[in-house]
Amino acid sequence: MEKFELHVLGCGSALPTTRHFPTSQIVNMRDKLFMIDCGEGTQLQFRKSRLKFSRLNHIFISHLHGDHCFGLLGLISTLNLLGRTAELHIHSPRGLDKLMMPMLEFFNHHMSYKVLFHEFGTKEATIIYEDRSLTVTTIPLRHRMPCCGFLFTEKQTPNHIIREMIDFYQVPIYELNRIKNGADYITPEGKIIANSLLTRPSSPPRSYAYCSDTIYLPSIVEQIKGVNLLFHEATFATEDAPRAKETYHTTAAQAAQIAKDADVKKLLIGHFSARYEDEDSLLKEASAIFSNTQLAKETLCISV
Amino acid sequence: MEKFELHVLGCGSALPTTRHFPTSQIVNMRDKLFMIDCGEGTQLQFRKSRLKFSRLNHIFISHLHGDHCFGLLGLISTLNLLGRTAELHIHSPRGLDKLMMPMLEFFNHHMSYKVLFHEFGTKEATIIYEDRSLTVTTIPLRHRMPCCGFLFTEKQTPNHIIREMIDFYQVPIYELNRIKNGADYITPEGKIIANSLLTRPSSPPRSYAYCSDTIYLPSIVEQIKGVNLLFHEATFATEDAPRAKETYHTTAAQAAQIAKDADVKKLLIGHFSARYEDEDSLLKEASAIFSNTQLAKETLCISV
Repeated sequence: MEKFELHVLGCGSALPTTRHFPTSQIVNMRDKLFMIDCGEGTQLQFRKSRLKFSRLNHIFISHLHGDHCFGLLGLISTLNLLGRTAELHIHSPRGLDKLMMPMLEFFNHHMSYKVLFHEFGTKEATIIYEDRSLTVTTIPLRHRMPCCGFLFTEKQTPNHIIREMIDFYQVPIYELNRIKNGADYITPEGKIIANSLLTRPSSPPRSYAYCSDTIYLPSIVEQIKGVNLLFHEATFATEDAPRAKETYHTTAAQAAQIAKDADVKKLLIGHFSARYEDEDSLLKEASAIFSNTQLAKETLCISV
Repeated sequence: MEKFELHVLGCGSALPTTRHFPTSQIVNMRDKLFMIDCGEGTQLQFRKSRLKFSRLNHIFISHLHGDHCFGLLGLISTLNLLGRTAELHIHSPRGLDKLMMPMLEFFNHHMSYKVLFHEFGTKEATIIYEDRSLTVTTIPLRHRMPCCGFLFTEKQTPNHIIREMIDFYQVPIYELNRIKNGADYITPEGKIIANSLLTRPSSPPRSYAYCSDTIYLPSIVEQIKGVNLLFHEATFATEDAPRAKETYHTTAAQAAQIAKDADVKKLLIGHFSARYEDEDSLLKEASAIFSNTQLAKETLCISV
């Protein structure tokens, strides 16, 4: 199966702790890297995860709180020091370029590459990135400021050729692409060989949903239905539910309820408040509602 | 002896590595904390060193390169989240406030405390901070942009009272402060008791010099003569001396030459280039010239 992995670079929230970095993740889709959020220290964590800067071309910022974007300045400067030439695309809600440009210009007199800012609206789900193997769609969330999650959806890959049958029917090589994409084969004698005899269906497309930061928001369930992996913020424990509501965050139990209602395959929780010594109680509360729950942690890498 | 310690929070240079954070240090003078430089991730390292944010009131920025100041935004925001009320003073070469204010205002709508920026010139040694126990003086350096190091000098503390002699001469309590500061005691009978009979001299004042970033600059030797501890940047090994000169940095051997010429008690080297797998060769080159040399490393704490 093609590579589709998630690296957690940081899973703390705004206040620093000795255990967690602020939010950042990397989606590795067939060795193309996509960054989600970029809290302070992200570039250090990126290096620790032994990932390659040259494979990173797109960064998605969920919202303009410092713990989700203060690492951009350092990262962009480092890529400049490394002599990068490829364009870097930063997708975010409105306003980031205006904030960043004066500092970028001061701290990087001669940029070796271009940083391109792309703004997205936060009210409606929108496709903001697409290539041959992937689409990225915004997931409108509800936080103290405009905020979106991101849905990474693999595109359906072509069917797998059954080598023995191709040989048996002496199918010419130039026909293979058409057959992979579903066409039947017509022999020189005019006989139709059904595609299903020549190919095996490829694996169903996989998907990853990132939902942070947000108040408990059942309206997202429909959009993330059945995803292979859901990352959902779980800033607070149930005993702090009033605080969660007040600050537009989610409890671990509420995150699990979303996972259950959306019938996802696996739930990863993170964005932990600094108030908890460890996250065992959060895991316990979530697992009681949705058993296939895992705690995010720094340098964790899991396959979607 | 009163506390006078140096904590190393980060000792790498601009490019991130898996081993080093960018530059930041804390001087702990009798439980008042003074920060020198504030690279990305400083607030995380601060927490790891188990230091208290409430004891930090002054930050000294040597120069406006990102690896020396990109951590300020996160640190200032965190102190705001924590509800700090005391003013925070940031001392730096010109231009930092203009760069930072738009971002600070956007990311911290309601500041619970004031951040006060103080600019210093970088051409002449100037006292930029003073309290009862300490002065901080700039050390003009030569880098690719205006840059100063900092000299932390303890003030002479009062003499120590010899309890037995005070009792013997029945010196009244209200005389003790004068005697600590060098006065003789005159008995009710008019007899003069020499101060030297009543007190022991306190330890000589200690000093710490921070010199980073700079090209090899023998002109600083006079100002840092005899300091107890010198931190000097040692970005490169001797084989990369041309690169050091070109980028206005120092080699480990040159740092040691400064330490030797200034007759300092101890040399700490840091600001290591990312190109070295480890810093053993830097230590070796420096120690050959100045034997009491130590490598900086993260979370190192040494007494000045």
